[in-house]
Amino acid sequence: MNKERLDKQFAFFREIDKEKFIGRQTYLTDKKRKENDAEHAWHMAIMTVLLSEYANEDIDILKTVTMLLIHDLVEIDVGDTYAYDAKGKETQHNREEKAAQRIFGLLPEDQGERLRALWEEFEAYETPEAKFAHVMDNIQPMMLNDATDGKSWVEHGVHLEQILDRNKKTAEGSGELWEYVSGELLEPNVKKGRIKR
Amino acid sequence: MNKERLDKQFAFFREIDKEKFIGRQTYLTDKKRKENDAEHAWHMAIMTVLLSEYANEDIDILKTVTMLLIHDLVEIDVGDTYAYDAKGKETQHNREEKAAQRIFGLLPEDQGERLRALWEEFEAYETPEAKFAHVMDNIQPMMLNDATDGKSWVEHGVHLEQILDRNKKTAEGSGELWEYVSGELLEPNVKKGRIKR
Repeated sequence: MNKERLDKQFAFFREIDKEKFIGRQTYLTDKKRKENDAEHAWHMAIMTVLLSEYANEDIDILKTVTMLLIHDLVEIDVGDTYAYDAKGKETQHNREEKAAQRIFGLLPEDQGERLRALWEEFEAYETPEAKFAHVMDNIQPMMLNDATDGKSWVEHGVHLEQILDRNKKTAEGSGELWEYVSGELLEPNVKKGRIKR
Repeated sequence: MNKERLDKQFAFFREIDKEKFIGRQTYLTDKKRKENDAEHAWHMAIMTVLLSEYANEDIDILKTVTMLLIHDLVEIDVGDTYAYDAKGKETQHNREEKAAQRIFGLLPEDQGERLRALWEEFEAYETPEAKFAHVMDNIQPMMLNDATDGKSWVEHGVHLEQILDRNKKTAEGSGELWEYVSGELLEPNVKKGRIKR
């Protein structure tokens, strides 16, 4: 038994428990409690397994799921930056780099490097897996916002333009999913005034 | 765009949001809040990716991860049955069968059948993937219980014998992980009186 390796792996597992305390701005379907990062990641992982059939390019599903499971771990140190917080976004990347070094550094070197590379691939937004993972990261909260009568959109006074800007590459990951969410999740909420024009 | 298929998939995604409200008996590392099923599944999915190297037999990692991501969905209808609640366990399976039919039945037929088969494979506890998934399902709460000074074990007056009974097949999934958790997570807590002899 490689106790040293296992100790490092379990130290990482204990540390990442903290992701369950990182709050997001999205309301759950009870319209009361807001989602945390771990719940968000779980939801997207299942969505990936079931929606990968709509990816524009063939994707490695396990790689995409793993990317989504770990992509918010840096927020244990830096917190969640709301999608439409322009100021927070400016300094976000440097703060997250430091967090990645600390958190993935808890693991045995080979595994830490592997997860860090996956996180960087997600951030770089270039590979088919990263593009599809971003589709999930964008549409999962859209689905919850729609299911809660747009509560988070209304509270933040979000404009359609901001959503379209954030989603300017969503169709590169999945044209079909972008078409569906535009028509089914965005348009009706614009019409109802929950998303500002 | 196959709107009918997508509508079913999104109805399922909205429904499973409820898993985030299903509480478990395990305390998170803050020792205050208890974990919910979605957080538990997220944690185990990452553990599977990083610990699969210790599986006794080769496992399909994506299959095992997917199994763990969805294996508690039936609790949306029936609630969590505590590992050491003998009475609740008696009627658990029938209630869960009905829940599986309803919840997986929201999906397009092919995907609903696929997830239901995965859930049944987990329950049957026979394949290498099901055995490894059970290792994760057993050791993730042990790790949190150890990290919280055995709070949940103490509150429920849990005996070592009950834990060993629940884990009688854990070594079949991973001898190495069972050796590690026995020595590092169980023994010290028995010595400290947090688990009863």
